[in-house]
Amino acid sequence: MNNPLDPEEFRRQGHMIVDFLADYYHNISNYRVLSQVEPGYLKKKLPSQAPFDPEPIETILQDIEEHIIPGITHWQSPNFFAFFPSSGSIAGFMGEMLSTGFNVIGFNWLSSPAATELESTVMDWLGQELNLPKEFLFTGHGGGVMLGTTCEGVLATLVAARDRMLRQIGKDKIRKLVVYGSDQTHCAIQKAANIAGFDPNNFRAVKTSRSSSFALLPQSLLKAVEKDLRDGLVPCYLCVTVGTTSTMAIDPVGVLCRVAKDYGMWIHVDAAYAGSACICTEFRYMINGVEYADSFSFNAHKWFLTNLDCCCLWVKDPNSLIKSLSTNPSYLHNNTSNSKQVVDYKDWQITLSRRFRALKVWLVLRSYGLSNLRNFLRSHVEMAKIFEELVKLDKRFEIVVPRNLAMVCFRVIPSVAKMANDEVNQINRKLLDSINDSGRVYMSHAVVEEIFVIRCAVGATLTDEKHVMMAWKVVQEHADAILNWYLLNYSFNQPFIS
Amino acid sequence: MNNPLDPEEFRRQGHMIVDFLADYYHNISNYRVLSQVEPGYLKKKLPSQAPFDPEPIETILQDIEEHIIPGITHWQSPNFFAFFPSSGSIAGFMGEMLSTGFNVIGFNWLSSPAATELESTVMDWLGQELNLPKEFLFTGHGGGVMLGTTCEGVLATLVAARDRMLRQIGKDKIRKLVVYGSDQTHCAIQKAANIAGFDPNNFRAVKTSRSSSFALLPQSLLKAVEKDLRDGLVPCYLCVTVGTTSTMAIDPVGVLCRVAKDYGMWIHVDAAYAGSACICTEFRYMINGVEYADSFSFNAHKWFLTNLDCCCLWVKDPNSLIKSLSTNPSYLHNNTSNSKQVVDYKDWQITLSRRFRALKVWLVLRSYGLSNLRNFLRSHVEMAKIFEELVKLDKRFEIVVPRNLAMVCFRVIPSVAKMANDEVNQINRKLLDSINDSGRVYMSHAVVEEIFVIRCAVGATLTDEKHVMMAWKVVQEHADAILNWYLLNYSFNQPFIS
Repeated sequence: MNNPLDPEEFRRQGHMIVDFLADYYHNISNYRVLSQVEPGYLKKKLPSQAPFDPEPIETILQDIEEHIIPGITHWQSPNFFAFFPSSGSIAGFMGEMLSTGFNVIGFNWLSSPAATELESTVMDWLGQELNLPKEFLFTGHGGGVMLGTTCEGVLATLVAARDRMLRQIGKDKIRKLVVYGSDQTHCAIQKAANIAGFDPNNFRAVKTSRSSSFALLPQSLLKAVEKDLRDGLVPCYLCVTVGTTSTMAIDPVGVLCRVAKDYGMWIHVDAAYAGSACICTEFRYMINGVEYADSFSFNAHKWFLTNLDCCCLWVKDPNSLIKSLSTNPSYLHNNTSNSKQVVDYKDWQITLSRRFRALKVWLVLRSYGLSNLRNFLRSHVEMAKIFEELVKLDKRFEIVVPRNLAMVCFRVIPSVAKMANDEVNQINRKLLDSINDSGRVYMSHAVVEEIFVIRCAVGATLTDEKHVMMAWKVVQEHADAILNWYLLNYSFNQPFIS
Repeated sequence: MNNPLDPEEFRRQGHMIVDFLADYYHNISNYRVLSQVEPGYLKKKLPSQAPFDPEPIETILQDIEEHIIPGITHWQSPNFFAFFPSSGSIAGFMGEMLSTGFNVIGFNWLSSPAATELESTVMDWLGQELNLPKEFLFTGHGGGVMLGTTCEGVLATLVAARDRMLRQIGKDKIRKLVVYGSDQTHCAIQKAANIAGFDPNNFRAVKTSRSSSFALLPQSLLKAVEKDLRDGLVPCYLCVTVGTTSTMAIDPVGVLCRVAKDYGMWIHVDAAYAGSACICTEFRYMINGVEYADSFSFNAHKWFLTNLDCCCLWVKDPNSLIKSLSTNPSYLHNNTSNSKQVVDYKDWQITLSRRFRALKVWLVLRSYGLSNLRNFLRSHVEMAKIFEELVKLDKRFEIVVPRNLAMVCFRVIPSVAKMANDEVNQINRKLLDSINDSGRVYMSHAVVEEIFVIRCAVGATLTDEKHVMMAWKVVQEHADAILNWYLLNYSFNQPFIS
C-alpha cells in the first residue's frame, strides 16, 4: 500500500472531507435534530468483524451518509436548543485540524515547546479579557491550563485541595474531608470527589430554592459547615457555580468565598457555560469575588466557538497542583525541565499525553477578534430575550425562573382546572417529547423543586432569530395539540396520568 | 461578520488548511526533528493581548509557519524515534475531522446514538482481532470504551477496584489498600493511585533486574504481597505491563495473574504500545493469560495509525465501572437510558463530555484493512531488527536488553579502558544530546539499573528503511566524534566527567 501519510493522498482525501462537511453544514437544517433511531440500529447495518481488505474512502463516506448521520443528534443544527451548546466554528475546526495534523504529544515543554508556550500565552490573554485578578495569570505567578473537560479541572483541583488539607491534618484523615456544593451543582463535582477518594457521604449538596432562583446562599452553606465541624469533619473544598445546568442559577461568588475562606477551604468557581460571557463588561459582575477563589474554570467548547474539547482552568497556586500531580520518571528527564524555566503541563493535569488545544483557541481569538466574539455572545442573549418575551406573551406558559444569559426555563400550565403538580409535570414531559420527536427542534429539561422545566438554550453557532421564532412556533403548535387533547379527555375523576 | 460556521467560508478555509498540512508532510524531513527554540521564544513573538479586530486566516497561517512550526517537535517526521510514536495517518486524520465537524457530545446514548453504537461495535471488532476472551466483549457481557489516554483508563479501573474492595472490607479502610506494579511500570499508574486516594506509601514498585529483562517476576510480586499482608495491608490492584516504556519489558501476564487472583486483586494489563501488535498472530503470545485479568488497554494513538487521542479499554465487568462512575442527574434522564437497553459511556469513564473517537478508529480499520495494518506493524518490527543488526555489527556498541517489537535499546561502550559506569553514562548522554541537537533524528533515553540507555523506537508513519539506515549513520558519526574527543582528552588521572 501507499504510505498511510502519503501527502498527495492526504490532500485528495482532505479536500473530499472538507467538501463533505461543508455540504453537511449547508444541509443541516434538513435533518431531524434529535436522532430517531432505535437502540441497536447500527449493529444491524455493520459487519460483525473488522474488514480484512482495505476499502476506499468513497465507500466509507457513503456509509457515513447512510448509517452514521441518521444516528447523530445534530448538535451543530441551528435548531439545537438542548443542554448547553457545543459551540463549533470555522476557526475552532481549523485549529483542531492543525493540531490533529501536527499530532504532537505535548506532555512537557521539550516535547513541543510551541504547544506549551502558546497555551500559556493564550491562557493569559483569556484571563485578562475575563478580568481575572492578576494572581491567576502567569504574569502574576498563577497560571492557566487547557484540559479536556470541567470534570478533569475539578478533579485536579480537588486532589490539590485534598492533599493541601491532608498535609495539615494528617494523611489518614482523608475520609474526614468534606466537599460543598449546592443541590444544583453539576453532578461532575460529586463524581470527581468520589474518584478522589473522598467519602461519598461527605459531599454536601446544600439545598437551594426557587425563591432565591436556586442560588447557593451563604447562610445555608455556613449552617452545613458548622454541622460538619460539630460532627468532627473537616471542610475542604467548595464549588461555587456561575450558571448551573438546570436553570442557569448564579451562586454569589464573593459572599460564599468569604464563608469558605474562614475555614481554609479551597474554592473553585465553575463557570463552565457562563464564563465565556464574562468577556463582556455587562456580564462580568457574575464572577465578582473570584479574587477570593483558588481556581476558576470555563469550557471554551460550550459557548466560545471552540470545538470539543477545551476546558480552561486557572489557579492561583500552580505548585499546589504540581505537588499532587507531578511525575518525574527518568525517561522524561531533560535539562530544560530541570532548569525550572518552563511549564511542564503534565504536572498540572490528570493525564500525561495532551492535545495541542491552544491552537484552536488562538485561531478563534484571532479569526473573530474580541469585538466579534462579544457581539456574537450578545446576539445569543438577545435571541433568548426574544424567546422569553414570546413565552411571556402566551398566558398558558410560565417562565419558571428569571432568565440569565441565553437560557430560558419555561413550562406550560393548563389554566382550566386546579391540577396536581405531577400532572402539570406530565403534560410538560409530553410536550417536550412531542416537540423533540418532531425533529424540528431539540430542547431538554430539568427538574427543580419537583417542577419539570423545559430548557431552551440558545447558542448553536448557526442559530439566528428566525430559528428562535420557529422554535417558539413549534412549541406553541405542540402545546395546542396536547392541551386540546387534554381538554377533550380530562375529567376530574380520572387523573390525566396514564 | 459572516456566521462563524458559514459553509462556503468553511469550505474555503478547509481547503487551505488541507493544502497547508499536505505541504507540511511533504516537507517534513527538512525540519529539525527536535525543536531547538529557547524557553520563552514565543512570548517575544506574540502580542501581549488578544486581538480586538479579526484577522484573516492567511495572516494566521503565515504566523504558524514562522512562529509555531519552529517550536514544534516533529512527531510525524520519519526521523522521529523518541518515546513511543504518535501514530498519525490519513484515515486517522479524516476520522478526527469528521468527529470535529459533527462536534457531538456523546455522554449518553441519546445524545448521539451513532457515537455510542459505533464505539461499541468497533471495540468488539478490535477485541476479536486481539483475540481477547469473549468475556471482554459486549457479546460476552463485558465491553470496551474509548478514552483519551491510558491514564484515564487506569484511573477508572483503579477506582472500580478500590470501591469493589472497600465494599468488602469497609469504606474507611481506603488507606490500607495496596497497588502493585514494577519499578518499570509507567509513572501514570502511581499517579492515578494517588489521585484515587490510595496512600502514596502503598504503591509497590516491585524491583526488576536486567538479568530477567526488567520483567516483573511472580516470586517478587508474591514476596511484596506477603509482606503487606503481614503488615495488615490489603492487596487491591495489580498493573501488569506488556511493553514497558523504558525497555519494552514484557511482564508474564499469566503467572502474575495467578498470584494476584489468589488475593482477590483487580488485574489490569497495560499494553499501551505493544497491544497494537497483538493483532498479528506471532506477537499475540505477549498477552497470553489476559483471560485471567479484569481489564486490558492499549493506545490506538501510539501504534495503530490513529491520531491522538484514543485509549481502548476493555473490562470484563462493566458494572464495576458503572457502580463507581455513574451519575444520574435529572437533566439527563431519558427513556432509553431508563430502559437499560443501551450503553451510556459517561458511566464508564472519568469525564462526562466525550469525543466521537470511534469514527477515526473505524476509518483506520476500513481504510487499511487488517491485512495492511498487520503488514505495517510488521514492517516497523523488521526495520527495528535492521537497526539492531547494525548496532551489533559495530563493536563499540552494546544492545542493553534483547529487542522486543520495534524498539532497540543500546549504548556505546568505549573499549579502550576500564571505565566507571557513571562515565559510560555520561558519554552516552553526550552522544544522545549531540544526535538530537543535530536535528537530523530524535531519539530518547531511559535509565535502568543505573545504565543510561538510548532508545530507538521505530514507528512514525512516514519512516521507511532509508530513514532507519540514516539514523544509524547519524549515531555512528556522532559516536565517532565523541569517542575521538574522548581518546584525545581522557587521562587515567582525570575523570572524563566535566
